[in-house]
Amino acid sequence: MDDVIADATGQFIQFYEKEFGVRVTRDSLNHKDEGLGFPAHHHEVIQQFPFRETFFQTMIPHEGSQEALEKLNKKYELFIVSAAMQFPQSLIEKFKWLAEYFPFLHWKQIVFCGSKAVVHGDYMIDDLAYNLETFNGEKFIFTAPHNLHIDKYRRLNSWKEAEEIFL
Amino acid sequence: MDDVIADATGQFIQFYEKEFGVRVTRDSLNHKDEGLGFPAHHHEVIQQFPFRETFFQTMIPHEGSQEALEKLNKKYELFIVSAAMQFPQSLIEKFKWLAEYFPFLHWKQIVFCGSKAVVHGDYMIDDLAYNLETFNGEKFIFTAPHNLHIDKYRRLNSWKEAEEIFL
Repeated sequence: MDDVIADATGQFIQFYEKEFGVRVTRDSLNHKDEGLGFPAHHHEVIQQFPFRETFFQTMIPHEGSQEALEKLNKKYELFIVSAAMQFPQSLIEKFKWLAEYFPFLHWKQIVFCGSKAVVHGDYMIDDLAYNLETFNGEKFIFTAPHNLHIDKYRRLNSWKEAEEIFL
Repeated sequence: MDDVIADATGQFIQFYEKEFGVRVTRDSLNHKDEGLGFPAHHHEVIQQFPFRETFFQTMIPHEGSQEALEKLNKKYELFIVSAAMQFPQSLIEKFKWLAEYFPFLHWKQIVFCGSKAVVHGDYMIDDLAYNLETFNGEKFIFTAPHNLHIDKYRRLNSWKEAEEIFL
């Protein structure tokens, strides 16, 4: 979900601006691990953002993700697998968010986990290398500021590109 | 979780008694699909029990499950995989329940899903045949009133028996 179908980076920027009155650019976050592109003396506060209410529920869907998933859902057996367990309050927020923006998905297609190591399938699209590492099928890294330096996996730069490959 | 490490059957009996003033015996539920052992004219109400608050959080752990899982957790890479998505309010209740009764489990070991078809591993212990069907590894059915008629899978009658086999 985060930084694949939901704009988590945008949400961090938004929360940071509300907290500190400074709007950080997306480009300034490039090539740095999640959260580490923000000023170092604020890292502790930033790490708490995902534990705050509304952080997950008010995210904006990633450009083109709704249209692409609706099409993919007709051709593939689609599952949303989200590492949500670290933030227990996110469970219900993520569930409601999916119902709001991806109403064509059935609850049977949702998986909230801690580790993605138990999940298998034909294809996985993820923004984090360590989620892809343990996967048995074909792996795609979805471009986000924090993964630009990773060249181990085939890259998807947008949902438009994903549509071209999978449809 | 339900009817494997948590006494879901006991909870249904408990909720039924509170609602209708009649205590149903466990044996009267034998060989009947979940919920269908209760009087037929109450089935609709019974199906709503899992949507009520506290239904999942106040369950009693299955006899011996805490001791067994604590031991298994030292020998195996253990995951709790629960089909929780049908009852969104259960997500946080199940999370808290695990933290309360199985504090030795890390959040990375928890998976809440709709379908268990995406989960793989070496062994699966479940009370429902349709969860075992799609699993790639060795399958064990954990005895519950609603699965006594199933003879397709190796049976675990108790957590004591599970300890003997796995430890």
